[in-house]
Amino acid sequence: MSDLTSHRVALGERSYDVWIGAGAITDAVTRLVQSVRPRRVAAIIDSNLVDSHSSRLADGLRAADLDLEASALEVPPGESAKRLDVVEATCRRLVADGWERGDLILGFGGGAATDVAGFVAAILLRGVAWGSFPTSLLGMVDAAVGGKTAVNLPEGKNLVGAFWQPSIVGCDPDVLSTLPIREFRAGLAEVVKTAWLGDVALLERLEADPPTTYDHPRVADVIRCCVEVKARVVAEDEREAGRRAVLNFGHTLGHALETHGRGRWLHGEAVSLGLVAAVFLSARTKRCDEALLERMIGLLERLGLPTRVDDLDIDAVLAQTKQDKKRAGGVDRYQLTTGVGAVSVADDLPADAPRAALEFLCR
Amino acid sequence: MSDLTSHRVALGERSYDVWIGAGAITDAVTRLVQSVRPRRVAAIIDSNLVDSHSSRLADGLRAADLDLEASALEVPPGESAKRLDVVEATCRRLVADGWERGDLILGFGGGAATDVAGFVAAILLRGVAWGSFPTSLLGMVDAAVGGKTAVNLPEGKNLVGAFWQPSIVGCDPDVLSTLPIREFRAGLAEVVKTAWLGDVALLERLEADPPTTYDHPRVADVIRCCVEVKARVVAEDEREAGRRAVLNFGHTLGHALETHGRGRWLHGEAVSLGLVAAVFLSARTKRCDEALLERMIGLLERLGLPTRVDDLDIDAVLAQTKQDKKRAGGVDRYQLTTGVGAVSVADDLPADAPRAALEFLCR
Repeated sequence: MSDLTSHRVALGERSYDVWIGAGAITDAVTRLVQSVRPRRVAAIIDSNLVDSHSSRLADGLRAADLDLEASALEVPPGESAKRLDVVEATCRRLVADGWERGDLILGFGGGAATDVAGFVAAILLRGVAWGSFPTSLLGMVDAAVGGKTAVNLPEGKNLVGAFWQPSIVGCDPDVLSTLPIREFRAGLAEVVKTAWLGDVALLERLEADPPTTYDHPRVADVIRCCVEVKARVVAEDEREAGRRAVLNFGHTLGHALETHGRGRWLHGEAVSLGLVAAVFLSARTKRCDEALLERMIGLLERLGLPTRVDDLDIDAVLAQTKQDKKRAGGVDRYQLTTGVGAVSVADDLPADAPRAALEFLCR
Repeated sequence: MSDLTSHRVALGERSYDVWIGAGAITDAVTRLVQSVRPRRVAAIIDSNLVDSHSSRLADGLRAADLDLEASALEVPPGESAKRLDVVEATCRRLVADGWERGDLILGFGGGAATDVAGFVAAILLRGVAWGSFPTSLLGMVDAAVGGKTAVNLPEGKNLVGAFWQPSIVGCDPDVLSTLPIREFRAGLAEVVKTAWLGDVALLERLEADPPTTYDHPRVADVIRCCVEVKARVVAEDEREAGRRAVLNFGHTLGHALETHGRGRWLHGEAVSLGLVAAVFLSARTKRCDEALLERMIGLLERLGLPTRVDDLDIDAVLAQTKQDKKRAGGVDRYQLTTGVGAVSVADDLPADAPRAALEFLCR
């Protein structure tokens, strides 16, 4: 475990460390349990991952060498866990077991299981401590830092939730190898987004030597750099009142495409298309030149991510953006870029620009 | 409205004012809307109160003179509103209406409706602003200050929730007259608790001239004093890590009696019995003398509150305290007193003491 590193998310009394490297999950579980000293620990875990990974949690608990009751609560795999009835059933099981405020929740899985675990921790007995142990690249580089937890309603994604910071995060790149390679690559879209808005050197390394497989020697480095960028942005704006909105770079049209596609694209794939669209819009509104658009497309393609689509119902996607926009208070919020390392929010986009961006994706 | 007063709850960036007096609801609604400037306002309101009181909210919105969409969402009366499915249905209605983070919730009713409103505000879109407008004495002197919001699970009361401070609170004593007098008197038990632990002068005024009806000239004064005490305690310990636990004075056995009684006693009536039990336990453990117990009993009786019971299944109540205790982490937490103005938490009570206290209630 010599290559374990820790990265501080500085949020005053809600600060915490993100541990990254081989063995980080086991190590962080031990640290967390020794610091919280709960009577009970419950792991909320994606049911698909119980067989392959729960031993890492158990090893961490054993190493803590404390007398405690540990249980594993399975939630449905992936996005299907993000429902209020899953949250309610989980809370009921915990209180029936005699849960108390000093106890501890561990969230283990892709972004969905950690979202559910974090939200359960936020509302159970008005808030208990939790640790986040993401198993997907998307979860490690994006969802793990920042304390955003939520579940979906039939009306849309992430509509009820809380900002509830974990007490520790553990990211072990070794667990990525059990995911389909398509999911790993989709996570790279968030890596590109994060590097583009906050780490020029990382972006250049991605271009020079694209980490297209999970055993690439620099995967841990990629996670570390992204966590550093995200921790910086979140520390400036914990509750997304302003600056944190730049993290939505590529997400305005990306989200509309994802919702419209109903499973056609993974979240990261839709974000890849959204990043192309965002730089297209930046060039079209003279914020940057065409070369920057070519640079974004070139990098995403080398990472195996989609940069164009066949067969798109542009009107339907635009209708979806209008629905999203209604939710965002009637304001079109696009994150545009003037160059690598420079992303900001624009709300003065010409009305016909989003259609042009979608047409460009159909090029 | 010349007698409107405001009382600061000092919680850093989460600070807010409690407005008290005739017209306080209308006035506070206007202030709140003018400061938040939302596009949409939704009043979450006890369905029993729509006819009698919603005009106060409407007057406040009209006086704000802003262009906004206002809606009233009724929730079931009393405790039956405090369910997760009511929270979910309310959230779904709001997002279907295009709710956004800058919008505003008003909670209007007894402690239950404001609890639901506060919890909806805490989790909708990861948190929106809200104002609390309690209509019961219990709500005004206890629930309105401190930001504790919660709903019940089948396993017990207030098991999921959040600390989510309102942006303003408005307490208008005029609305108390529409409640049954029994509910008003039950609220006086929380007044006695609050005065006992933090306002000796108020306690003496209660003794000299008991405010047994809602048109008593000093009802507003009683609310003001209790809000001041509670604001002080909450400011010291927002998330109930320590000091705030003294607010549970009288609640350990009171809560067990309330749960066991299944409607036999209103919350405040059970607290009245719990206060007698708490002072009995204080005397029995030599923290105070018998005269203090007589003083507590005398005051509660003058306020028309129960201080003894017929026909109590003591074993069942003790079993209930064991269940509550299990929830509280296996620790018996009793708030005991050494005199008026001096309440502290004790966890070294002799094992047979709670039974003796319940036997005393059957005297």
